Amino acid sequence: MTQRVFAVEPWAISARTLNDADMALMESMTSTGNGHMGMRGNFEEGYSGSTHQGTYLAGVWYPDRTRVGWWKNGYPEYFGKSVNAMNIIAIPIRINGEQVDLYRGTPGNFNVRLDLRNGLLTRSFDYHVDNAQVHVEFERFLSLATPELCLQKVRISVVSGSAAIELSPQIDGDVYNVESNYNERFWDVVWRCGGKHPALSMRTKPNLFGTPQFTVTGGMALHAEGLNLSGEIDDPLRVGCRLNSNLGAGESVCLNKTVAVVTSRDLAPDQHAEAVARLLGDAATRGYESHKATHTALWEKRWSRAAVLIEGDDEAQQGIAFSLFQLFSTYYGEDERLNIGPKGFTGEKYGGATYWDTEIYLLPLYLAVADPLVSRSLLTYRHNQLPQARTNAGRQGLPGALYPMVTFDGLECHNEWEITFEEIHRNGAIAYAIANYTRYTGDRSYLDGPGIEVLTQISRFWAGRVHYSKRARAFMIHGVTGPNEYENNVNNNWYTNYLAAWVLGYTCDVLDELPDRASELGISDTEREHWRTISATMYLPADPELGVQVQHDTFLDKDLRTVDTLDPAERPLNKHWSWDKILRSCFIKQADVLQGIYLFEDGFSPDEIKRNFDFYEPMTVHESSLSASIHSVIASAIGERGKAVELYRRTARLDLDNYNDDTDDGLHITSMSGGWLAIVQGFAGMRVRDDRLGFRPFCPDGWTRYSFTIGFRDRLIAVQVSGEDVQLKLLSGDPLDVDLFGRTHRLDDQIVVPLAG
Amino acid sequence: MTQRVFAVEPWAISARTLNDADMALMESMTSTGNGHMGMRGNFEEGYSGSTHQGTYLAGVWYPDRTRVGWWKNGYPEYFGKSVNAMNIIAIPIRINGEQVDLYRGTPGNFNVRLDLRNGLLTRSFDYHVDNAQVHVEFERFLSLATPELCLQKVRISVVSGSAAIELSPQIDGDVYNVESNYNERFWDVVWRCGGKHPALSMRTKPNLFGTPQFTVTGGMALHAEGLNLSGEIDDPLRVGCRLNSNLGAGESVCLNKTVAVVTSRDLAPDQHAEAVARLLGDAATRGYESHKATHTALWEKRWSRAAVLIEGDDEAQQGIAFSLFQLFSTYYGEDERLNIGPKGFTGEKYGGATYWDTEIYLLPLYLAVADPLVSRSLLTYRHNQLPQARTNAGRQGLPGALYPMVTFDGLECHNEWEITFEEIHRNGAIAYAIANYTRYTGDRSYLDGPGIEVLTQISRFWAGRVHYSKRARAFMIHGVTGPNEYENNVNNNWYTNYLAAWVLGYTCDVLDELPDRASELGISDTEREHWRTISATMYLPADPELGVQVQHDTFLDKDLRTVDTLDPAERPLNKHWSWDKILRSCFIKQADVLQGIYLFEDGFSPDEIKRNFDFYEPMTVHESSLSASIHSVIASAIGERGKAVELYRRTARLDLDNYNDDTDDGLHITSMSGGWLAIVQGFAGMRVRDDRLGFRPFCPDGWTRYSFTIGFRDRLIAVQVSGEDVQLKLLSGDPLDVDLFGRTHRLDDQIVVPLAG
Repeated sequence: MTQRVFAVEPWAISARTLNDADMALMESMTSTGNGHMGMRGNFEEGYSGSTHQGTYLAGVWYPDRTRVGWWKNGYPEYFGKSVNAMNIIAIPIRINGEQVDLYRGTPGNFNVRLDLRNGLLTRSFDYHVDNAQVHVEFERFLSLATPELCLQKVRISVVSGSAAIELSPQIDGDVYNVESNYNERFWDVVWRCGGKHPALSMRTKPNLFGTPQFTVTGGMALHAEGLNLSGEIDDPLRVGCRLNSNLGAGESVCLNKTVAVVTSRDLAPDQHAEAVARLLGDAATRGYESHKATHTALWEKRWSRAAVLIEGDDEAQQGIAFSLFQLFSTYYGEDERLNIGPKGFTGEKYGGATYWDTEIYLLPLYLAVADPLVSRSLLTYRHNQLPQARTNAGRQGLPGALYPMVTFDGLECHNEWEITFEEIHRNGAIAYAIANYTRYTGDRSYLDGPGIEVLTQISRFWAGRVHYSKRARAFMIHGVTGPNEYENNVNNNWYTNYLAAWVLGYTCDVLDELPDRASELGISDTEREHWRTISATMYLPADPELGVQVQHDTFLDKDLRTVDTLDPAERPLNKHWSWDKILRSCFIKQADVLQGIYLFEDGFSPDEIKRNFDFYEPMTVHESSLSASIHSVIASAIGERGKAVELYRRTARLDLDNYNDDTDDGLHITSMSGGWLAIVQGFAGMRVRDDRLGFRPFCPDGWTRYSFTIGFRDRLIAVQVSGEDVQLKLLSGDPLDVDLFGRTHRLDDQIVVPLAG
Repeated sequence: MTQRVFAVEPWAISARTLNDADMALMESMTSTGNGHMGMRGNFEEGYSGSTHQGTYLAGVWYPDRTRVGWWKNGYPEYFGKSVNAMNIIAIPIRINGEQVDLYRGTPGNFNVRLDLRNGLLTRSFDYHVDNAQVHVEFERFLSLATPELCLQKVRISVVSGSAAIELSPQIDGDVYNVESNYNERFWDVVWRCGGKHPALSMRTKPNLFGTPQFTVTGGMALHAEGLNLSGEIDDPLRVGCRLNSNLGAGESVCLNKTVAVVTSRDLAPDQHAEAVARLLGDAATRGYESHKATHTALWEKRWSRAAVLIEGDDEAQQGIAFSLFQLFSTYYGEDERLNIGPKGFTGEKYGGATYWDTEIYLLPLYLAVADPLVSRSLLTYRHNQLPQARTNAGRQGLPGALYPMVTFDGLECHNEWEITFEEIHRNGAIAYAIANYTRYTGDRSYLDGPGIEVLTQISRFWAGRVHYSKRARAFMIHGVTGPNEYENNVNNNWYTNYLAAWVLGYTCDVLDELPDRASELGISDTEREHWRTISATMYLPADPELGVQVQHDTFLDKDLRTVDTLDPAERPLNKHWSWDKILRSCFIKQADVLQGIYLFEDGFSPDEIKRNFDFYEPMTVHESSLSASIHSVIASAIGERGKAVELYRRTARLDLDNYNDDTDDGLHITSMSGGWLAIVQGFAGMRVRDDRLGFRPFCPDGWTRYSFTIGFRDRLIAVQVSGEDVQLKLLSGDPLDVDLFGRTHRLDDQIVVPLAG
């Protein structure tokens, strides 16, 4: 059940039709961001149909009062939300007195295009009012060079007739969060001013929870050609002006609008006015085209490091380009106070900024395609929030630290009991990331320093959360939700138990090597022995007859059926079935046992992996955006190439083809690494084992070749795989040994090895 | 952890102190009702401290928009709530210009008393203003004779000094529901008038869900002695007047206020004004004292049929008298459109009017102490809601009928998935009640008529809700919440599975005797065979080693501990533990396996019952008001008399001693039968087997004797049990055979049998 509104182009998305029913989806898809801020692909002139107007500033959030059916002890008191901030792109247009509105009017030659190489969003259309026909062109981008800046251009030409044109470029503070629990507004206006640089300063409302308030100031500069200033906008929630002109056929006007946005995260509010003026002054000096060139060059630099090129399959190429573009638009590691929210700057759903997705799905990508400092920032973010993680555990009456399911500030802010209290495997993900970083980079400094502190507190949590079953003579973990959120409150979820046992064992291993830190951290021998005991005697459900790990205690009692028995009209299940029916069914939302096998692949024989894949994947509906990629990687590993490619397509084009019918809410930002994982870990079979990089590549049918670049321990290595061979090229750094199909090769400059089997 | 604010008296509750911290608790306890309406024990003059002002009218409700953390498919759209209606008792008082307010002032000789024999609530206190000391006495009752009437009397005497006294008797429509989800008001004023009978007519606001709006009109008549009318109350939400007087020491004034309340449930709104005037006119003609005498006589008639008398233990006597008083104040079967809500007229918590409590806990009492038509009304109520029950099932994608967990109109309005979708054993309770009514009354007409329709649809639900486990070769029910709500989403809850299997088998048995109805209802032989198969091969977890039924699949894997290992400071658990910890623990909120054994006692050997009791009861925290009574009955049956009495006390004095620290929210109305069950089914061992009534009584230590009356198949029988013997007296009806300690006796007039064992 896919839905595609954009044409297939390798490095762009574009559409030539506009349907109101697709508007929110289209807005999500044409979102842009630069790490500092971002926005949905809203129309500059406004739109009175089914729009979701949304602009978001990284790290600016509001603790919305939580809403829940029946309160349970231990629930968080607020749900942190990215605040929908001032609309900075607004340029309402009137032609002969009539508001231009593509919902009410009937535009011709509509065209919207987002260039994935540089994030330039352009849009044009023809518009009739009375006897006048005008042509309107917009262009905008959020600067990578100066991330406080949003630069816009609009050109209006009269094609026939004559037109009185009025533009009202503005900053509009009359905004609200669609997902506000109590329909409350989150902002107060602090000050506004007009003049050369009209500016608006807003502060988030005081809150009940002692979390910080944020002040955000946006100012605007204009450069107009052929337009006259006719007045200022007089509105307590808006600043801007009106410009107008009377044009005859063949005449046109052009307006450049630059908005600078600063926040109290970076600058004290009393410095905002000056900072905005300076930013706008500098921007004016440099000019729009110069800015655009610098901005484009910076995107090119990112792509030179991270681009995945696929020849022979434009849909596949578009998928991976779109995914990486949107991910980098959200986060490129400049600010270690930030993390990667599930919707990035493209929507509000789910709230919060940080999920376990970062550690499991995103860290591997940043490790390979960005400076190692970016990955280290992501780890440091969690160490900084260790005190809050201890608070979270304490609220559940448990020792140690429990990292949150959803958070801005480290405190849990999600309140469904089956998630908040039960989806605790997230705590294992935080520990796993420390090990994964250490394995990939070879850098032990994080592990030995802050890392072991995090591991210790996570281990204490697990030791408090297990119980000993006398009947089974084993430690158990009851009452959890595994990665498969289509089951809740299960007992002995294999993934959770395995991960917890691993954390406890790994922490002990690390402590064995760091006796001083162990005593510093107050970990007694008894405590470590207890951890070792739990780790060694954790109950891990398995079925010897089927030869598979068992998802949880009673999974095999279910009515086990494969996905192909489902009526396609009932997909996705969560939009058609009652929750009850979903929970009872065997259908799996996302990798669960297989997620564990993915993380700990070396602990399982190829046969065992294949048996589990063949057992679970056919029951998996992949209705989480995080599912297909992991399955694709495993499918590649066990030689199920067709399946691997099918799942690659599903992950890389999840939003492009709206597989889960929810892209209107925003993009699935934290799964944007999925295509990359499927290609690099899957098709190319990249692994790091015992400090050595290795590949076991194949080239999907129909692809001529694909190539990518990875960083590994101070080297840059280009990898290209065709139907015949794999080529590795050392772009920078010292020579190193690399495994290809299990054989070691010395990579000095370049090696070419024919594909195996 | 009990808390007692009222003195122990056999047939009254009274207090001589007033603490603001206890105010809400005291208001709950002194609630009064007459089936038509009721109210908390609010103070007539107002109270600015921790009051919860609440007046409720039977069957008048509002569909509050539901609030829930994350919406799940199948959730109900509204949550029906008893609407807090106009405050009809208000009589603010000023003395020398100062508002009388027992929170701000310092009253002397405070005294409040609720007479359980007739529901008369009286209150008096001394009050100082400047140099004046006055004595104030209130008295009020809700008429059983004319249930639209609330009658009040206030007398104010000046003890010393002189006092300018002003009273403002009124009807106050400025009310709201504490438990409103969105802080919305539920009422609009339709009209108001002054004059002889000031009246206020209000209508519930339009709602989004198509449920009926209600119009309620209240009018007031006054009879004053020594007071002058000084003006009318001019307020859009209030009607009433001001009366005043200047008194010297030794002088007094007296005011009788009568309020008549009619609703659109009984009368079209355009007839309200006339009806209210007529009711008030009639009331004035008869006078306050005459009304009171009639009202008291009607209560005496109820008590003559239903009173349980205990000699030798005033606490026990007070407990049972209070329980039955409050239950009858809520429901005495006059209106078959009504049912029995968990808080009756005493609070708003939980919403809804009808829970499965009615069928399991209350029906047995009404069968024995009220006209059989009352019980039949309760069954008819469910048959009338069969179409809505089918809608409920359909919303979960299931066939047949699912009776709601919480409802006013038959549609489910509770929305926690673990309850709405999973606590489906409620559906079995509806079926059980049909069988229980038939067994007790010997009247098959309900079963053969509407009853079998209800059973058929419930059976279809169960047949759709089970699944066949190939591994276990049995039918299973996954994903349920049993009666023990301290566990959620368990698999194969023994109680639910057993009950479902019984329903399917019982329905088939009944259909075998009604071949015509089977074909009328479109039940094929195949369908019946399938029901038989499910019933016969339902998976029923049991542990042969322990010799017990197992609460659900993995219960025995828990860390099994007894309640005496808990820190008393952590009780009740639901106020101290995180939900997670509660769910994982072994501690049981209320009878679960034992609930099934209670219902189907004859299916289990005495040893088996004892083993289950000895295994489960020590893990049971009895934190549901419905728990202690069932355990007490079983304890009696297995000879655990000390435990039975302890649990009697807990159920009968649950609110009197505030065991669960939640009586401030309102009384536990639907568990008010618990004391009666513990005495009649427990201590006296009353059972009906094979159309024969039987007893197996004992007399608790410390009790001299106890006695009660029951109705059974057109007879009235008085039962009295002392330490020595049991006496049965046939008060009316034909002679019958009665079993005592398993031996059959002919009851012509009276029999006396010595106690066994």
